[in-house]
Amino acid sequence: LAGCGGTHSVAPGTQEAEDLLLAAAYVLDAQYNRNVPFETSPQAIRLYYFYNHWTTQVATYFFICVDLALALFEEPALFPLPFLATSIAEILCLTAFFGRLIHFAKITPQMVFWKDTKNICIMVTIVLTLIDLIIYGSLESINVRSIRWSRALRPVFLINFPESRQIRRAFRSLRNTLPDILYVFLLFMFSVLMFSLMALKLFGDRGLKTAEGSPYFENILEIAFELYVLVTTANSPDVMMPAYDFNWWYSLYFIIYIIINTYIFMSVFLAVVYNNYRKHLKNEIRKLAYLKRHKMIAAFNVLKVKVGADFVVEEAQWRRLAQVVAPDMSSAHLELLLRISDEGQKGHVDKMNFLRLADLLNIHVVTISIKRHPLEAWMPRVYQSSASLLVQKMVRHRIFVWVFDVIILINAIFIALDEKNSLISYAEWLFLSLYIIEILLKLYTYDPKAYFERKQFWNCQQILDIVLILRILRLLRVIVSIQRFRVIVTTLINIGPAMLTFGGLVFVVYYVFAIIGMEVFHGKVQFFDPNFTAPDALVCGNPALQGSAFARGRYCKNNFNDLASAFTVLTELTVAWFLNFLLLANGFALVTHQAAKLYFILFHIVVVILIVNIFIAFVLEAFFVAYSLEKSEVETAIEKKIQELGVGIQEEELQDGKLTDHVDTKDRGLHGDDGDNKRKALKGLYCRIASKKYRTVDALLQRMFESEIAPENEGSALDEILNFSPSDMCPKNPNFENSA
Amino acid sequence: LAGCGGTHSVAPGTQEAEDLLLAAAYVLDAQYNRNVPFETSPQAIRLYYFYNHWTTQVATYFFICVDLALALFEEPALFPLPFLATSIAEILCLTAFFGRLIHFAKITPQMVFWKDTKNICIMVTIVLTLIDLIIYGSLESINVRSIRWSRALRPVFLINFPESRQIRRAFRSLRNTLPDILYVFLLFMFSVLMFSLMALKLFGDRGLKTAEGSPYFENILEIAFELYVLVTTANSPDVMMPAYDFNWWYSLYFIIYIIINTYIFMSVFLAVVYNNYRKHLKNEIRKLAYLKRHKMIAAFNVLKVKVGADFVVEEAQWRRLAQVVAPDMSSAHLELLLRISDEGQKGHVDKMNFLRLADLLNIHVVTISIKRHPLEAWMPRVYQSSASLLVQKMVRHRIFVWVFDVIILINAIFIALDEKNSLISYAEWLFLSLYIIEILLKLYTYDPKAYFERKQFWNCQQILDIVLILRILRLLRVIVSIQRFRVIVTTLINIGPAMLTFGGLVFVVYYVFAIIGMEVFHGKVQFFDPNFTAPDALVCGNPALQGSAFARGRYCKNNFNDLASAFTVLTELTVAWFLNFLLLANGFALVTHQAAKLYFILFHIVVVILIVNIFIAFVLEAFFVAYSLEKSEVETAIEKKIQELGVGIQEEELQDGKLTDHVDTKDRGLHGDDGDNKRKALKGLYCRIASKKYRTVDALLQRMFESEIAPENEGSALDEILNFSPSDMCPKNPNFENSA
Repeated sequence: LAGCGGTHSVAPGTQEAEDLLLAAAYVLDAQYNRNVPFETSPQAIRLYYFYNHWTTQVATYFFICVDLALALFEEPALFPLPFLATSIAEILCLTAFFGRLIHFAKITPQMVFWKDTKNICIMVTIVLTLIDLIIYGSLESINVRSIRWSRALRPVFLINFPESRQIRRAFRSLRNTLPDILYVFLLFMFSVLMFSLMALKLFGDRGLKTAEGSPYFENILEIAFELYVLVTTANSPDVMMPAYDFNWWYSLYFIIYIIINTYIFMSVFLAVVYNNYRKHLKNEIRKLAYLKRHKMIAAFNVLKVKVGADFVVEEAQWRRLAQVVAPDMSSAHLELLLRISDEGQKGHVDKMNFLRLADLLNIHVVTISIKRHPLEAWMPRVYQSSASLLVQKMVRHRIFVWVFDVIILINAIFIALDEKNSLISYAEWLFLSLYIIEILLKLYTYDPKAYFERKQFWNCQQILDIVLILRILRLLRVIVSIQRFRVIVTTLINIGPAMLTFGGLVFVVYYVFAIIGMEVFHGKVQFFDPNFTAPDALVCGNPALQGSAFARGRYCKNNFNDLASAFTVLTELTVAWFLNFLLLANGFALVTHQAAKLYFILFHIVVVILIVNIFIAFVLEAFFVAYSLEKSEVETAIEKKIQELGVGIQEEELQDGKLTDHVDTKDRGLHGDDGDNKRKALKGLYCRIASKKYRTVDALLQRMFESEIAPENEGSALDEILNFSPSDMCPKNPNFENSA
Repeated sequence: LAGCGGTHSVAPGTQEAEDLLLAAAYVLDAQYNRNVPFETSPQAIRLYYFYNHWTTQVATYFFICVDLALALFEEPALFPLPFLATSIAEILCLTAFFGRLIHFAKITPQMVFWKDTKNICIMVTIVLTLIDLIIYGSLESINVRSIRWSRALRPVFLINFPESRQIRRAFRSLRNTLPDILYVFLLFMFSVLMFSLMALKLFGDRGLKTAEGSPYFENILEIAFELYVLVTTANSPDVMMPAYDFNWWYSLYFIIYIIINTYIFMSVFLAVVYNNYRKHLKNEIRKLAYLKRHKMIAAFNVLKVKVGADFVVEEAQWRRLAQVVAPDMSSAHLELLLRISDEGQKGHVDKMNFLRLADLLNIHVVTISIKRHPLEAWMPRVYQSSASLLVQKMVRHRIFVWVFDVIILINAIFIALDEKNSLISYAEWLFLSLYIIEILLKLYTYDPKAYFERKQFWNCQQILDIVLILRILRLLRVIVSIQRFRVIVTTLINIGPAMLTFGGLVFVVYYVFAIIGMEVFHGKVQFFDPNFTAPDALVCGNPALQGSAFARGRYCKNNFNDLASAFTVLTELTVAWFLNFLLLANGFALVTHQAAKLYFILFHIVVVILIVNIFIAFVLEAFFVAYSLEKSEVETAIEKKIQELGVGIQEEELQDGKLTDHVDTKDRGLHGDDGDNKRKALKGLYCRIASKKYRTVDALLQRMFESEIAPENEGSALDEILNFSPSDMCPKNPNFENSA
């Protein structure tokens, strides 16, 4: 089984179909003439299926969660458990990870397995964790407290298991950006240091005092730290006040500093990150497109037979292949796919069509049967009466939707008004009953199953509406109905899933920082209940904080005494960075060591300079693609063909109102043309073509690169594809493409 | 004189050369056969020159400055002057502006003049200002105080005079971005309002109190304002504290709010602004390139004669044209240009070469004469002695530069160390003497004139070094010498001039806001000397501020009582926005009206959402161009030709060390080849080719679009060019170019 989910799994989506096809092709071939480069068997396919089965995946994620959650129960713990209990749980997790790795090794060629850094990473982490556990355990038994350093490595399991492809990709973005950003960062630090030197020269000798009476700008390291913080504008007026009071002109120094180091350098960081992000994104997706082509050609070469002048795959072989790859596929579905692949009913599939098979398997096929409404089955006379039909027509009419949009708007205005007014609280009940009437009418008109279908977002929404607050979200529907807002809203919705990726990335970074923070800072700062009046309560239980801004600001609750507190502090630092950073850094520097400030600066660099910029780059790219999509149409060959055959259905058409009418026509058309049995099996089966609006950057880029590969292209060599570098790209018109 | 500096002056640089050439072509033609579409004469050319002469331009700027500065002397004034004095000064300025406009009308065809909105703008503003002056003056005479509203219009003169092309362009960027950003802004406001409604539902009924004891989140407008401010994260922990104290989970509401409205929406604003910026920048520059071609073809058609099969311009006619256009050009310079234009010495210039004339006139020609060092002339024996030659060789050597780089680094470290140590202050003297020795040695080796040449930045720097602080800037030279930093540093330097444009833009916006702020807020908040202990001092002289955070924060100095204070407040709002915004807005709302908050929100929208984003877009684009430039070479046809003829000199080679050697070889080569008189006149004259490193985005884009126009292209019609729209562009490969 060549390269299943191995090193090259660089992007989501259609990745697995071609892997599976290639593997299945080898299996089919092996059943006849055992002429295969390595061991394959139906059992291997079964192992592969089992590896990818949802139960094993869920089990793996369960153990990853348990492993990560252990930090809640280990000292410093939120819910303390004895060391023995947590270490047994950890060993269990490690065993599970190891088992999963062995399973993966079974279904992967040895060479590919050992070349994959992910597997090496997991093994090394397992070994290191075991060593750490043994050392800590033995020291614990003789009552020496040491550090459980391997805990910071736990996110490795989350990142490196093949299922976390997206998080890994985000990390790759991060890593690819590092070399370039390093140079800008050095320059930035150089600029900060130069300004520090200037500040020392300008202010060092003047004997100025800060508001707290300590010497102002007399030590180069202190100055550098203060100026670094000034970049985040956290200490903006305070840091310049002594100089400003001394002479108004000195404020110019600080304004120039902020313009250069905050506005310009932060933009440069964004420019570098964005440039790299775009470059590497394109390269990864191009790699993927070529790799897919390479695998599909390999599969074709295994199965091909010569018919006439051309090599083709025979229909019988094609059917066997599809059955091995997708055993659960209905026969009607299979016929539909065959009809698309073997257009002319020649009894074989040519190369062009075979190469598209992976895409074809990924296309969703929906069954649309014109079911009767349950009420119609139950009491057809009443449901088909003219009054009932009028109601149905009314509900299906566009004005029905508009009327309720207006009602929602009025409702929003009422919510904004003072609710204590009794008239308004009556109005609330009126609105609630109107919504319930709307739901009942819709249930009466449409099939309840269709109404509750997963994709019918707004209808689900209506149910949730009854929960008072989310009702307001319905206003979004009014917005989406306005053409000009649609690009923005749909792009924002498309970004949604990727937000989870960034969530994963941020979680991993937080976890590592939290573990380190807990080791370094735990117990240094205590939080006492506000009603508790011990003298220590005012200095967070640490005399070093006497008279500090940290204690005065009542920051005691911001500590690293357990995982939850640490996560809260780090979230605050990310979201509302500037207000806490200086006080926190100075406070923790007081209770431990001046070097503690480095921890906070490092966190700022990683989270704000790197991750936030990658996030912005991602949003920017999504919008640029959305804006260009407005004008251009990118349709894959397969979609075009499905459209031509009339077996496709646009996702937009799957909306409630238009659906039934459309299917009616289609259906009649099919019956009218030719009524043979084969066609009848297809009745109601349609390929769902993804809406053009809801396409991600990845999907779009992949289409582009696929259209770039000529159909007759035999594919590049595997090594060549894997070594594609971003700078090889776009040789045609480099200037315009990159800069304009 | 067609379209001199009229409506189409969209970009800098090579703009005027082709205008002048076209005008001169008509004049030359008119001298022979008065067959011209409109009145031209040598007198018109003189008027044109006088209009563009530096004296009239300086005078105009002087009057603009006076007009803008009047706000310093008018009530509320920094230096009060009677109304009579300021109004006389203003009328003087208006007269000057009107005179300038008349002058411009004289040298512009009537149709073009009246089509230009700039001229209309100026005229309307002059009339409005006069009306305002009369009304205010007459009301003043009967002691009724009214508002001098026309003062907010004064920046119109700064923006609309033809010389402020760059500021106008920045404003155009702003205006072009408005429609698109409006939709995002509406969506953003919708999101803020929706969250406000949710907040009202969530928190409104709970009877929570803020830290100051006032009701928390009970009024929809208050909530919307607080949430808008939360986008700037100004009130980040405070605004959520009551909810957070009530229930930990409510913090999720605020975190989601910040992720959506701060991180995502601010990125979307940037995406929209950047997308528009890039689109319109490309369109403007393309327009310019086509316009230039159009004018040059028109000039060629006026002067052409048929020689053989082709139309050409004869050498005599060419010389007359050059003399009209550039009367001050030396004959050697003229010969050099002719040699480039008439390569084959055929006695005429063909069309291709004629079309390049505007570029050619814009190329700087430098005279490089191998002057003797003054010391050599004064005492040749001593200067040419072997010891002296050794010293000169040593100074010219690369190691000499490196040694001083190391000395600078060591010096920087010494500055960072404690200066009170006597050893270190002695070291300071040592460094100072080392620098003086370096300067003396360089003066000894290089010609003092060359040494002090304007472009020799680092040498000037050395002189300034003696001023203690700027010495540290020399470290930048060490950085620039490292290859990897060069792209970043040179791009940052290239951005420099454009920063002034943004400075102009910001100044105009500040001015308008300051005038409005002064009218609305002046005198409402008073600043008292800290030693003054009147009870009013604590509430900034306004009892409405009793107990407010504004008074407690000692914000009294942040007021709008004169232009300087207003500018200071607005600068603080821009640079250190978040700390002041809420207190300021609330404070001024207390002393005037709740609607005063709108003033601050509007300022935030204009400055932060629009201008800062355009600035970031500009920096991003500059870096993307710089990164693509690293790989590609864009050389204009004219530069290629100059290189081939061996009469060009790269700007990089004009550095001190390499210069003389290079010129020596060049010079010898010229003498060796052929020694006729004509060539001798060229001795030491070279075209300076701008360094590839120091090219702006504009210059690069212009080159690209020029190379896009085929040489045989007869140019589009003028109307067509002026109506180019951004969406017409790049039809070749739309998907890749826009999105990838």
